[in-house]
Amino acid sequence: EEQAKRGKFFVWYYVMLKWFFSLLIGVGTGLAAVFINLAVENFSGWKFAATFAIIKHSYLAGFLVYTIINLALVFSSVFIITQFAPAASGSGIPEIKGYLNGVDTHGILLFRTLVGKIFGSIGSVGGGLALGKEGPLVHTGACIASLLGQGGSAKYHISSRWLPIFQSDRDRRDLVTCGCAAGVAAAFRAPVGGVLFALEEMTSWWRSHLMWRVFFTSAIVAVVVRSAMGWCKNGNCGHFGSGGFIIWDISGGQEDYSFQELLPMAIIGILGGLLGALFNQLTLFLTYLRRNYLHRMGNKVKIIEVCLLSLMTSIISFGLPLLRKCTPCPTSEVNSGFECPNAPGTYGNYVDFYCSKDNEYNDLATIFFNTQDDAIRNLFSAKTIHEYSAQSLLTFLAMFYFLAVVTFGTAVPAGQFIPGIMIGSTYGRLVGMFVVKFYKKLNVEEGTYALLGAASFLGGSIRMTVSLCVIMVEITNNLKFLPLIMLVLLISKAVGDLFNEGLYDEQARLKGIPLLDFRPQQYMRNVMARDACRSRQVVSLPRIVKVADAVSVLQSTKHNGFPVVDSGRNGGSLVIGLILRSHLLVLLQSKVDFQNNSLPCELEGGPISSRHYISDFVKPVSSKGLSIEHILLSDDELGMYIDLLPFLNPSPYIVPEDMSLAKVYNLFRQLGLRHVFVVPRASHTLGLITRKDLLIEENEDPDTLELQSTSMSD
Amino acid sequence: EEQAKRGKFFVWYYVMLKWFFSLLIGVGTGLAAVFINLAVENFSGWKFAATFAIIKHSYLAGFLVYTIINLALVFSSVFIITQFAPAASGSGIPEIKGYLNGVDTHGILLFRTLVGKIFGSIGSVGGGLALGKEGPLVHTGACIASLLGQGGSAKYHISSRWLPIFQSDRDRRDLVTCGCAAGVAAAFRAPVGGVLFALEEMTSWWRSHLMWRVFFTSAIVAVVVRSAMGWCKNGNCGHFGSGGFIIWDISGGQEDYSFQELLPMAIIGILGGLLGALFNQLTLFLTYLRRNYLHRMGNKVKIIEVCLLSLMTSIISFGLPLLRKCTPCPTSEVNSGFECPNAPGTYGNYVDFYCSKDNEYNDLATIFFNTQDDAIRNLFSAKTIHEYSAQSLLTFLAMFYFLAVVTFGTAVPAGQFIPGIMIGSTYGRLVGMFVVKFYKKLNVEEGTYALLGAASFLGGSIRMTVSLCVIMVEITNNLKFLPLIMLVLLISKAVGDLFNEGLYDEQARLKGIPLLDFRPQQYMRNVMARDACRSRQVVSLPRIVKVADAVSVLQSTKHNGFPVVDSGRNGGSLVIGLILRSHLLVLLQSKVDFQNNSLPCELEGGPISSRHYISDFVKPVSSKGLSIEHILLSDDELGMYIDLLPFLNPSPYIVPEDMSLAKVYNLFRQLGLRHVFVVPRASHTLGLITRKDLLIEENEDPDTLELQSTSMSD
Repeated sequence: EEQAKRGKFFVWYYVMLKWFFSLLIGVGTGLAAVFINLAVENFSGWKFAATFAIIKHSYLAGFLVYTIINLALVFSSVFIITQFAPAASGSGIPEIKGYLNGVDTHGILLFRTLVGKIFGSIGSVGGGLALGKEGPLVHTGACIASLLGQGGSAKYHISSRWLPIFQSDRDRRDLVTCGCAAGVAAAFRAPVGGVLFALEEMTSWWRSHLMWRVFFTSAIVAVVVRSAMGWCKNGNCGHFGSGGFIIWDISGGQEDYSFQELLPMAIIGILGGLLGALFNQLTLFLTYLRRNYLHRMGNKVKIIEVCLLSLMTSIISFGLPLLRKCTPCPTSEVNSGFECPNAPGTYGNYVDFYCSKDNEYNDLATIFFNTQDDAIRNLFSAKTIHEYSAQSLLTFLAMFYFLAVVTFGTAVPAGQFIPGIMIGSTYGRLVGMFVVKFYKKLNVEEGTYALLGAASFLGGSIRMTVSLCVIMVEITNNLKFLPLIMLVLLISKAVGDLFNEGLYDEQARLKGIPLLDFRPQQYMRNVMARDACRSRQVVSLPRIVKVADAVSVLQSTKHNGFPVVDSGRNGGSLVIGLILRSHLLVLLQSKVDFQNNSLPCELEGGPISSRHYISDFVKPVSSKGLSIEHILLSDDELGMYIDLLPFLNPSPYIVPEDMSLAKVYNLFRQLGLRHVFVVPRASHTLGLITRKDLLIEENEDPDTLELQSTSMSD
Repeated sequence: EEQAKRGKFFVWYYVMLKWFFSLLIGVGTGLAAVFINLAVENFSGWKFAATFAIIKHSYLAGFLVYTIINLALVFSSVFIITQFAPAASGSGIPEIKGYLNGVDTHGILLFRTLVGKIFGSIGSVGGGLALGKEGPLVHTGACIASLLGQGGSAKYHISSRWLPIFQSDRDRRDLVTCGCAAGVAAAFRAPVGGVLFALEEMTSWWRSHLMWRVFFTSAIVAVVVRSAMGWCKNGNCGHFGSGGFIIWDISGGQEDYSFQELLPMAIIGILGGLLGALFNQLTLFLTYLRRNYLHRMGNKVKIIEVCLLSLMTSIISFGLPLLRKCTPCPTSEVNSGFECPNAPGTYGNYVDFYCSKDNEYNDLATIFFNTQDDAIRNLFSAKTIHEYSAQSLLTFLAMFYFLAVVTFGTAVPAGQFIPGIMIGSTYGRLVGMFVVKFYKKLNVEEGTYALLGAASFLGGSIRMTVSLCVIMVEITNNLKFLPLIMLVLLISKAVGDLFNEGLYDEQARLKGIPLLDFRPQQYMRNVMARDACRSRQVVSLPRIVKVADAVSVLQSTKHNGFPVVDSGRNGGSLVIGLILRSHLLVLLQSKVDFQNNSLPCELEGGPISSRHYISDFVKPVSSKGLSIEHILLSDDELGMYIDLLPFLNPSPYIVPEDMSLAKVYNLFRQLGLRHVFVVPRASHTLGLITRKDLLIEENEDPDTLELQSTSMSD
């Protein structure tokens, strides 16, 4: 309603600002991604370089240095999270999904969460834990978007006067959607995948207007990341800066596939569904234990837990390759572009680790004693048949699966994409090895199977479909595999759905974030609206309410909205609207609307808007809002009155008492409502609104429109 | 409600059938696309071969042969359209968009329309008119989907008994959405682009469940088309079969771009916006003239019009290159992969046409006297600087723009993508030529500018954004240009929006297809619901209605729905639901529910479902439905009664009388409704439904949920 009052210039300014903010979100998220990547690459680059240098002299010393560096990095991460930004732990995706569905989780979009997420990610990923930086980047993007939307953070005085004009929840949510897409686009350098991820996985309400803006943001991210990479190639980003930024280019992958191969591919899909569903179940169980027992014991326990995990990870990733014998370098693969063995302390395939002879490499170290990006690149690599032994891959699969499960849910920022890709590509490559063995004549590439395996595990765990497909295609830059990836995803998602829900949905439910699904549940078809709300009594307020009454209502109930009833012309009562708890609290706190008598106040636009800025009623995303306990009122004030009419929502949506709850659900879900009034059946109908009524323009004859319209939902 | 009664097996069968149908749609649309492509390529291949062969002896004879073949092909197309399938003319996209928005246009999804579309496309595209086959493919996909959804065509006896279980409008609409995506995916070999096109441009209601199915369909299309192309490479598809299937691979395009180039690219964007908006305006004006004057004169006029256009097109495309002098072949470009001049009668660059000397080619003939796919490939081609003279390009631009405008709206199947790409790439290449001249040192490729020009014109005319970007990226197989394409599209769409709406929206409005936009219009904020429907009187029916009364109500009004009123417990009246006109007509026609007295019938599930199949009430997409004039009732029958209770919708959505029309619009649009009841304000509220009420599961304590929910729209 306020928008109508504003001028045309304002609308223009508003649209420009939206686009400008989309630009800023893109730039900000892109830079954050570049920063995290550079930091991680440099930290772990130096870590491996130092370890390799010391290994020449003493394995024990090397192990100690490796472990201590990891521990220090991980400790910095968990310290930041527990002491400074508790909301930044985990991937943040379930919380953001909840926010976009209409449920605020406290603190997820604060400035301190953003800072904690960025620096925590660097520590936990750089420290070599079995987690990724991609999920946290989505949260980072969302934080940047939300902070921009509310014009900076009030607490840290980083706010400006002309920015905070995005007061409606919808505008802020649109920005956060842009931020999510930007996060994915930055993490995988997949702009189209980012848009589809936001569309498929995150957002609950979607308009095609928004899509273009989301896409714009993603493209900006792509430009920023590409420019930064170009800049890094010139050596401006530290010794190891040019690494990182996952692109697992498998352009050297399989040219074609035969029908025989569809069977092993289907097996990969089934494996992905089973292992993914198991992963969801195990992490759900562990998260439950952590929430109810371990993490209740305070921050110290959380810190100790993570440090122990870091120790364990270091021991496993250093120790297991030690136990593994070295393999002679393949001779026929000199032309595959990989040096063998790789010079110690640099990135690459065929890692030389504890090998006594020249021309030998350690296949387990190649994937275990390496950064995750490099390990994935090595698993996806084509033209490297027989690089890994089945034994090594199986060992890695079991150990890494275990590590990924126990690391999930600790108090550090943690994404599930990279661990999922690691696990999936390992068993994918295993299947690929068997295919090479059995179908000897075919030009099979194990790297292609690793790719399919990665897709299948993510499909079985996160249950993404379209966006995952597109992300996979974008990171491998190869459209040919699209049908194969789809096949694998179809199977793994179907298999996984037999057992449980997707990872984010399960976690959201455990965290008490009640997501409204697209469809009503089956039982709702048989419940009537009046039965659904029978458990609680409706508390109505009169139009002119005594302050004391309002306070007592607010104290005695927890409802967020109250119907306001007035006497109609015939003396009967009449529902005139809905007042929100938060608005009542603002009125009680500001006190400027108190009046001594119970007569209606003068109803003119002027006085109200002069007493309140519209922004007074907007709840800032990053605070808990007002509480009735914090409002102090004198006895005099308690005896005064407030006229609620100017502040109420005059026409909330209504449903008749005997409408099925499924229909109410649709109304609620599709329009993103907070409250629906259940009213008695009407005695008569004043009119019927049809498509015609909504389309008639001034000088058009309504009867010329002969519509054969069909409906969606009645 | 029926779904609840069905068993679990049925649900499973239902889901499988949906996926199976998606598969069939993909296969069908893919095959249709392959068939159209092969036919067009072979017809025009032989046409050009014959013409070139005769030209050696006589230009006049060559011209006559060329013109006559074109005329024959075009005549076959217009004959099919006017005599057999009038609904297949044009691109069909506005009509399908309307269908997905809830407005049926008569005949667009018939089997005969499908046949007409396929064979008409072959004639009109093969005949060399300035139109494309891509828009019609979208319509083709939609037809295939719709026919599958209703289980074949009843008229042509191609229906089966077990198929027609998709009775709800929603399921059919989902299938048609799949069909649209399949059409785009087949036309451009762009599966992701197809999904996004369906999402952005076509559909009005979208759920993320649907997205995966749409994507599946698109991928199937990609597989089918790829297999067919592989099969054609072996020479199974006729002499020219391996051509066609546009992929304008510009992998040899510009590697990088400098900031200086952004200015000419912005100019391309502005040009695209201006020329696109002008195109929309001119075609709108011409379509208006055609509808109101020319095409009212009958089919003969339509046929003559198209034949004259074909003659004109033949004369221009044969004659203009004749007037143009030949250019010597470039010597430095022998290694660009193109022969110069090209052997006559085959496809390729550097067309030799009327050139007396060896090693000469005609640059105007290269783009004008060629199939459109080849012309576009030639315009996009890299490493061919100075191939075209500015004079030739300007001539072609002017003539083709004119031809595209006058051809639009004639009675043949016609897509606007290819003409748009031709026009856009011509002025894009022109700008590229100037850039090459001015910024001499840069590694500028004219082909890249042509690509940007094509994007800009489509952006300025059709106003697609995300999907167009993705389609462009997919057909050129080059992600690098994404930011440039976005820049150009942002500018051209913004410039175009200053003047008019997108091509499809303008055409839909002219054709009387009232699309409901996502947002309510500004004036609706100040209109109350009761004022919006004041112009018409509400006609209510009693619960037990006399047949004669029902007939007279149906005869005297054109309303599609009627409130049903009964007396309540207290004697007052009570609105008990809504009965649809179409359901009333079915009841009147079948007569089985007539009863002699005005007492309520026994209300048990049994008798009603035994008297009616649920499918009786489903309106077939491909017929006009019943009309009251066609139902004959005897006087006895007119004196009987019907109890409407079993057949009415017991709880349609309602809005209070003083709700703003904008809110009603949101309700209507988001839920896809046909009717909304406007009722008086309620006297009291029976309850408030909040998020909590919709999420409570059986054994959960509602008070543990502490929600800080926010809303979208109140």
